[in-house]
Amino acid sequence: MRIVVTNCNTTQGMTEEIVRGARAAAGPGTTVLGLTPAWGPESAEGWLDSYLSAAAVIDTLRTYEGPYDAVVMAGFGEHGREGVRELVDVPVVDITEAAAHLACLLGRRYGVVTTLERSAGQIEDSLYGAGVAQHCAAVVGTGLGVLDLGDSERTEAAFVAAAERARDAGAEVLVLGCAGMTGLQRAVGEKLGLPVVDGVGAAVKLAESLVSLGLTTSRAGSYAKPLPKRRTWGPPSE
Amino acid sequence: MRIVVTNCNTTQGMTEEIVRGARAAAGPGTTVLGLTPAWGPESAEGWLDSYLSAAAVIDTLRTYEGPYDAVVMAGFGEHGREGVRELVDVPVVDITEAAAHLACLLGRRYGVVTTLERSAGQIEDSLYGAGVAQHCAAVVGTGLGVLDLGDSERTEAAFVAAAERARDAGAEVLVLGCAGMTGLQRAVGEKLGLPVVDGVGAAVKLAESLVSLGLTTSRAGSYAKPLPKRRTWGPPSE
Amino acid sequence: MRIVVTNCNTTQGMTEEIVRGARAAAGPGTTVLGLTPAWGPESAEGWLDSYLSAAAVIDTLRTYEGPYDAVVMAGFGEHGREGVRELVDVPVVDITEAAAHLACLLGRRYGVVTTLERSAGQIEDSLYGAGVAQHCAAVVGTGLGVLDLGDSERTEAAFVAAAERARDAGAEVLVLGCAGMTGLQRAVGEKLGLPVVDGVGAAVKLAESLVSLGLTTSRAGSYAKPLPKRRTWGPPSE
Amino acid sequence: MRIVVTNCNTTQGMTEEIVRGARAAAGPGTTVLGLTPAWGPESAEGWLDSYLSAAAVIDTLRTYEGPYDAVVMAGFGEHGREGVRELVDVPVVDITEAAAHLACLLGRRYGVVTTLERSAGQIEDSLYGAGVAQHCAAVVGTGLGVLDLGDSERTEAAFVAAAERARDAGAEVLVLGCAGMTGLQRAVGEKLGLPVVDGVGAAVKLAESLVSLGLTTSRAGSYAKPLPKRRTWGPPSE
Amino acid sequence: MRIVVTNCNTTQGMTEEIVRGARAAAGPGTTVLGLTPAWGPESAEGWLDSYLSAAAVIDTLRTYEGPYDAVVMAGFGEHGREGVRELVDVPVVDITEAAAHLACLLGRRYGVVTTLERSAGQIEDSLYGAGVAQHCAAVVGTGLGVLDLGDSERTEAAFVAAAERARDAGAEVLVLGCAGMTGLQRAVGEKLGLPVVDGVGAAVKLAESLVSLGLTTSRAGSYAKPLPKRRTWGPPSE
Amino acid sequence: MRIVVTNCNTTQGMTEEIVRGARAAAGPGTTVLGLTPAWGPESAEGWLDSYLSAAAVIDTLRTYEGPYDAVVMAGFGEHGREGVRELVDVPVVDITEAAAHLACLLGRRYGVVTTLERSAGQIEDSLYGAGVAQHCAAVVGTGLGVLDLGDSERTEAAFVAAAERARDAGAEVLVLGCAGMTGLQRAVGEKLGLPVVDGVGAAVKLAESLVSLGLTTSRAGSYAKPLPKRRTWGPPSE
Repeated sequence: MRIVVTNCNTTQGMTEEIVRGARAAAGPGTTVLGLTPAWGPESAEGWLDSYLSAAAVIDTLRTYEGPYDAVVMAGFGEHGREGVRELVDVPVVDITEAAAHLACLLGRRYGVVTTLERSAGQIEDSLYGAGVAQHCAAVVGTGLGVLDLGDSERTEAAFVAAAERARDAGAEVLVLGCAGMTGLQRAVGEKLGLPVVDGVGAAVKLAESLVSLGLTTSRAGSYAKPLPKRRTWGPPSE
Repeated sequence: MRIVVTNCNTTQGMTEEIVRGARAAAGPGTTVLGLTPAWGPESAEGWLDSYLSAAAVIDTLRTYEGPYDAVVMAGFGEHGREGVRELVDVPVVDITEAAAHLACLLGRRYGVVTTLERSAGQIEDSLYGAGVAQHCAAVVGTGLGVLDLGDSERTEAAFVAAAERARDAGAEVLVLGCAGMTGLQRAVGEKLGLPVVDGVGAAVKLAESLVSLGLTTSRAGSYAKPLPKRRTWGPPSE
Repeated sequence: MRIVVTNCNTTQGMTEEIVRGARAAAGPGTTVLGLTPAWGPESAEGWLDSYLSAAAVIDTLRTYEGPYDAVVMAGFGEHGREGVRELVDVPVVDITEAAAHLACLLGRRYGVVTTLERSAGQIEDSLYGAGVAQHCAAVVGTGLGVLDLGDSERTEAAFVAAAERARDAGAEVLVLGCAGMTGLQRAVGEKLGLPVVDGVGAAVKLAESLVSLGLTTSRAGSYAKPLPKRRTWGPPSE
Repeated sequence: MRIVVTNCNTTQGMTEEIVRGARAAAGPGTTVLGLTPAWGPESAEGWLDSYLSAAAVIDTLRTYEGPYDAVVMAGFGEHGREGVRELVDVPVVDITEAAAHLACLLGRRYGVVTTLERSAGQIEDSLYGAGVAQHCAAVVGTGLGVLDLGDSERTEAAFVAAAERARDAGAEVLVLGCAGMTGLQRAVGEKLGLPVVDGVGAAVKLAESLVSLGLTTSRAGSYAKPLPKRRTWGPPSE
Repeated sequence: MRIVVTNCNTTQGMTEEIVRGARAAAGPGTTVLGLTPAWGPESAEGWLDSYLSAAAVIDTLRTYEGPYDAVVMAGFGEHGREGVRELVDVPVVDITEAAAHLACLLGRRYGVVTTLERSAGQIEDSLYGAGVAQHCAAVVGTGLGVLDLGDSERTEAAFVAAAERARDAGAEVLVLGCAGMTGLQRAVGEKLGLPVVDGVGAAVKLAESLVSLGLTTSRAGSYAKPLPKRRTWGPPSE
Repeated sequence: MRIVVTNCNTTQGMTEEIVRGARAAAGPGTTVLGLTPAWGPESAEGWLDSYLSAAAVIDTLRTYEGPYDAVVMAGFGEHGREGVRELVDVPVVDITEAAAHLACLLGRRYGVVTTLERSAGQIEDSLYGAGVAQHCAAVVGTGLGVLDLGDSERTEAAFVAAAERARDAGAEVLVLGCAGMTGLQRAVGEKLGLPVVDGVGAAVKLAESLVSLGLTTSRAGSYAKPLPKRRTWGPPSE
């Protein structure tokens, strides 16, 4: 089976890191291919970035021709998943919802640790839209930007501090709230004594599950195919 | 005061119609200017269109230089308003939320009558995100597409039929669920014996209200200014 | 256009202050007239006061004959608005809901700063009844009674302290939780770096908006006209 | 123990009927005394009536001097209970909440059958305010006014028809939605094969329960004693 | 009237204590009989214990032949009440829901003080299932196990400390969150200046109320009689 | 990897059917072992059966010694999963939650088609407890008992009829609401043109996912290990 993983930003290095995480989670028969949008923000932090990213990711998939069996959307809290569900005929799993679905199976309440506090609202909305917000005890920020996650020691310390706030709010399970945190789950899980769910891995497993069960998005109602019409993807070139 | 009204699609004729509705609602000292995105869908119906529209509308405002005091976003149920709130320093009012805010003042429950049934979910999500879903009794579709609204007799009949379903669900007030329905409110209001709120007019009045009270979007938290970073708006030209 | 503003208590000085606030917000063609109930509590603090106030305000409007185009009810968190909606044929806007409606347009969550902590529950219920509670992050008290608000320095300090608790709870926008606080919004807004919404001004703008759009309360269902019957307004005189 | 039952309207005959129902439910050591407000509406139907009734009932208790151990407020869906809780030192039980509390113990969902459809919203709000709305499947009207309930055959038929709508909505238990329906529970219960709860009886039993357990309203927070201040109960006599 | 009170565990001494509490609350004509399950956990702390207890309590009632008019289930937060409602023809009241029902009548929000923190989730779920969670401000643990409650001084101190946390979260009324705390209500109520509701007493009064009103569980829908089938209660003996 | 699948009833034939469904879904390296409780109900229909089943399933796992990597609990809507999470050190997935988790990924709202209407409430509660009820549009019954599902033609017809009611309520995806329906998904999916999720297959995939990601139940808080104490599993043998 072939899974396409879309980065939500234009930073190639982050796509590679995400693909590494996805491959680590993928089953033996699964091939993972990463796609980096040719346009959009270099990192998605806030709503403006998120809407730009959504359009760019949809465009990326719209113009990607290779065969694939499922899409994993690797932008934590970012927009776009319903649009991709309309577009493609294969299952679509977003890492935000994926992490939450698995987290619900591991404890009574989960918490999300993300980058900047400003993203918390977007993540809350994304979890609500996916139908899995009820067991979310808290979304807390580390204060680190997406492109600051390279310094793994600092990231780990900031994550642990934020995780403690989530635990105080009732979280029994933690979720890595940024695709760029992939890989952190084992280190911090041990320190905290709590299960830590990485959305990238979670989404890969859920995508594999849907494919192997022969399930894909319903066309009845919300996610019907886009109507044929004139659409322009990006400004006219001058 | 100068209000910029953004159409959510590339159909110039619809912008003109919206501007007409906006001007009819505007107070004596208010100038209304319509903006049509140079890219995006020719009509927004479904999530894929909506995300494409959101990016195009944000890009339209990002590159628009003229001075203005407020933004009205005229895409019923479409995405983007939080991104525009980050982008501009003036108040931003989306016609979806605007209609719902006024409808709440006119009855205990309101109903939305929109174009295609497939848009109902998006509208419900948009109302929820704006914090005004609680009193929404129902979102019902007329079965007409956005670009089919030209035939006013058919539109009116379809609206009345759908409105009756909303009323049976408890709606005491109706909301026109598409910017392209602007103008319909008086005709159908009389037939139905119910107040009918048009989002375009509602948003203009709310925008004027905020401006005249000296209020604009909070920068504390969710709608902080976009971070400076590299962003590409649309695919590289070949 | 002529707007009647009803004070919720019998203190004439407070009516004057409210009318000043209302006039400051009103548009050029709007006349504001304040009504002070001839009976009721001298200030409304708690449920008993609130129900007494509701009956007195309704009675005041019932016996007021002058023509008017809209009613603004200036008792923050006080009861009565649905009864007034049944009674009069023009739009009715309560300052509690009005402030919340505008606050929702300015940030993701808002907070209310009121007088005594004992009023918090009533305000929460009033926001819920109006359909705008979802985005309320907190209602916090300053510890000052309604009739203690005269000392503006103390009031301002108490407001700022309470506002910080609201901000910690997630509020990005603040609402003045008492009609007697009108005028405070600019001073504290600057100190706090947050938009501060005054319900009196908000209600005036919303009332003007409804009138100019030709909208008024639905008679279908909840707010039908009161049935003709025998009613006695106040105890028999001895 | 002595329980005061307050009618919500000025119709003496209805007070007598309510007292009969209350006495039928009261335990051996309980004395029931009915109070009819000296002012207010002759029947409470809609919000205007309800606020007038609330003030009148509070005034009735405020000026009633006889000793009593508990108050039962017999206005289904009417306002005032929180004000009475502030006023008196003994337990206060409103028939709306009382019926719902017992109904929750008898089935998974309950339904309320009331008089006019226009009262449904008020009842829903009252149940929500009391914290027992969650298991309410529906509030349905019979189309009969409060003062039309005298014709018991017609009332019974209308009740059964409305009850069937409630059952279709999931109700496994029914609640009589008007104090004037007291006595109907056995007749319609048998016809419907469902338990039918009368709020008057329910409130008497809950009031007795609280008294015998030595429990009364908390003074911490919401229901603190009314502050001493100048209040005028009714318009100045001319 | 004869009320059967079921302990949720096999500890006979605790049954006796519960029966003492039940008798103190019971009216003059009420006889209380305690039943101790012959199997199950010696104390119920956590979900595994709770499900074991539920089966054992149902089995205890299934095999108890003596006549009785109502069942009180004395396991705070424990499972089983819906199963008992299916089984018996008389009213069934669980102490969790009973305490919450009465607490709702005494203040705007209530808090539960229980034994171990690990039980909080179960209690929250139990309140939700009973339809009375809305007004629960907090469930807090004392850190004491069920079988540690014997030392009344320590229990009282731990209760008061936990109660203060509940009060800070908005509780105006407290609920004893364990059948083994019965008797504590007066002592801690005075110290805290808050009403304290004991579920055992509350359930006895509610059971008496239902019986005297001639009400019992609805058979329509959820709590229909168990279908006749083969059931084995406990493992085959070897 | 070795997955233990527990039937919720004592009917060996149903265990076999479930194991067949589980094996069909399992990945290449997965071994599935079915366990049939030695006691409990022959089918679980209603709360009494469900609590009995919960205790029996926990006892079955408590006394099962073979090594295993995950537990799948195959009782749709039945109790017990939190108790099993306390008991075992490996991931536990219940088919109710599993089906809902996957259904959320396939459409905006899902519906459950179950056996008897009386089970609907239990299923709703189970979905709520798992944190996935938000997107459930309806739970509808076919009117067939668990042991009537053998006649596949009748079952299929009844399923399709019930599914249409779920679709009318907004379901875009269906869930098989009984372990005994396993195998039906393809036949009815084609007829209905909707994705149909079988909980057994879904739970197997989710269990495999958790195991392969190295995740298991959090011990922090709700699902801590059962405390050591005296427990008797079933009545004393005579």
